[in-house]
Amino acid sequence: MDKIKVAVNGYGTIGKRIADAVSLQKDMEIVGVSKTKPNFEAFMALEKGYSVYSPSEKIKKMKEAGIEVSGSIEDMIGKADIIVDCTPGGVGEKNKPIYEDANVKVIWQGGEDHELAGFSFNAIANYEEAIGKDLARVVSCNTTGLCRVLYPLDKEFGVKKARVSLLRRAADPGDIKTGPINAIVPNPVKLPSHHGPDVKSVMPHIDITTTAVKLPTTLMHVHIVNAELATECNEDDIKSLLGGQSRIKFVGQGVSSTAEVMEMSRDMLRPRSDMWENCLWEDSVSIYDNELYFFQAIHQESIVVPDNIDAIRAMMEIEGEGTQSIEKTNRSMGIV
Amino acid sequence: MDKIKVAVNGYGTIGKRIADAVSLQKDMEIVGVSKTKPNFEAFMALEKGYSVYSPSEKIKKMKEAGIEVSGSIEDMIGKADIIVDCTPGGVGEKNKPIYEDANVKVIWQGGEDHELAGFSFNAIANYEEAIGKDLARVVSCNTTGLCRVLYPLDKEFGVKKARVSLLRRAADPGDIKTGPINAIVPNPVKLPSHHGPDVKSVMPHIDITTTAVKLPTTLMHVHIVNAELATECNEDDIKSLLGGQSRIKFVGQGVSSTAEVMEMSRDMLRPRSDMWENCLWEDSVSIYDNELYFFQAIHQESIVVPDNIDAIRAMMEIEGEGTQSIEKTNRSMGIV
Repeated sequence: MDKIKVAVNGYGTIGKRIADAVSLQKDMEIVGVSKTKPNFEAFMALEKGYSVYSPSEKIKKMKEAGIEVSGSIEDMIGKADIIVDCTPGGVGEKNKPIYEDANVKVIWQGGEDHELAGFSFNAIANYEEAIGKDLARVVSCNTTGLCRVLYPLDKEFGVKKARVSLLRRAADPGDIKTGPINAIVPNPVKLPSHHGPDVKSVMPHIDITTTAVKLPTTLMHVHIVNAELATECNEDDIKSLLGGQSRIKFVGQGVSSTAEVMEMSRDMLRPRSDMWENCLWEDSVSIYDNELYFFQAIHQESIVVPDNIDAIRAMMEIEGEGTQSIEKTNRSMGIV
Repeated sequence: MDKIKVAVNGYGTIGKRIADAVSLQKDMEIVGVSKTKPNFEAFMALEKGYSVYSPSEKIKKMKEAGIEVSGSIEDMIGKADIIVDCTPGGVGEKNKPIYEDANVKVIWQGGEDHELAGFSFNAIANYEEAIGKDLARVVSCNTTGLCRVLYPLDKEFGVKKARVSLLRRAADPGDIKTGPINAIVPNPVKLPSHHGPDVKSVMPHIDITTTAVKLPTTLMHVHIVNAELATECNEDDIKSLLGGQSRIKFVGQGVSSTAEVMEMSRDMLRPRSDMWENCLWEDSVSIYDNELYFFQAIHQESIVVPDNIDAIRAMMEIEGEGTQSIEKTNRSMGIV
């Protein structure tokens, strides 16, 4: 079988990680990545052996800066079976016409609206619905993290209602443009936040309310999850269920903060010190007054990467079962 | 009527603020404050005209450093009708025997256990219960902030259940000893946190569950409050109720974070740029799926100060009604 030809439009925080993860798969390959600026990421893409493409009007500038450009974005799209659009939120929408012209399959990221693709994806929650689809949107890091816990909880015990406080990092570690640097920012101030409806874009029947703040930290998000379940169960039942999920990692052993979670990912020698799994504090799992509570940390830069790989397999119909694709992706990336 | 003689044992973050607030009252005066170290706070206490006392074994060292010491802690206690103990959490308990020997009334702070005083105080929630008491504990900043909103909500609409995420500042602005500096720390990891039971020490019948994290910020705590109410009501009802409370301040007008709340307190020319009121984002008040949600910011260094003043009045029986004492305290401090 020929390998699926994948192009990554937007080789930034998410795009570069997806390109590397695609390269690890036996059933797919990268045919090109796009950059609009001749920065270190563009040079490193070339060093890794990726063909770099640019918008036509930027090619001259890129070449002048020393980047060997293989062609325009349209040229790149012409070589691909499927595009993973990792351009900044809102830009992905503007790219839709060129994808339509090329009649190519597209995966957008969570920064775009659900309506753009008409289908929102999370590997564990709705892989099978994605099979053969031409357009999909892999939901954001926060929504991915919530789907990974709410889907099994709902399947096993029924989620009557979930209430989640989302504690969001202000900026990524390599980003110097934004704050806050010493404040807590209710964001959005108007409640509830859009994250609840975003979970419903994957699991429409879930009753969920979310609130969110922005914080002066760069490492990870933290979710404080509260859920009323339809079936009586105890803490061991919850730990056994969630601990059995391949993309949920229990943390403890002196890991008391997001800083130590990231230190652990560095010690695991993960590429870019990424953490693709939800990191759930086992000691925090509590049933109190008949309601479930726990803390989990979400690595915003990398958590959606394996789900993008699975979305490619489903849309390209090279794997009919979610569990099979998830296992292939996990094995290739080293998620155990 | 003679003024009530108040001594502040522990002239630190809370103690120095209470000393200044006592000095503003017509019905009380400071007879002494205590310091164990000859730092800038001790020198500034003398400059303000406070008599400074020290533990006997420290007096020599204090004098050598240039601090004019008026006597021992026991000497200070002997001059007072009531002691406000603002020593670090846990130290207040060790001081109990010297207070008992002197047969003096004592107010401890929220860092001590409820059992030490056997009575926990919040001015709006249980002023009348404090009248004539010999021992009381003014609850912590977080608990004070919660009592101020939950008490009126419960009285007016009935609180069936409250769930609160407490987002705590890591350290006070003048504290350089602690972190985190770039992380989110579930704290405590084991859920629920002790803050819920602490609210019950003032309002035993309230059903409340709390979770808490520590964050890399110094300015204020933020509470994400969720409450199921027993009576149907709308957002305007809530705003009208909470907006009518003298120690709750609605914020908006471009105040989008704790940093801007603090900037506002600086512009108000408040002493030490303190914010004694709960700062509640009016735009965040929402009824969603029949449950109330809102954000409030709590200035950990100063919010308990007016409640300490009211506790003195109740315990010394110089004001029989909470509303009267609160109004006196507010007027003296400039809380409108």
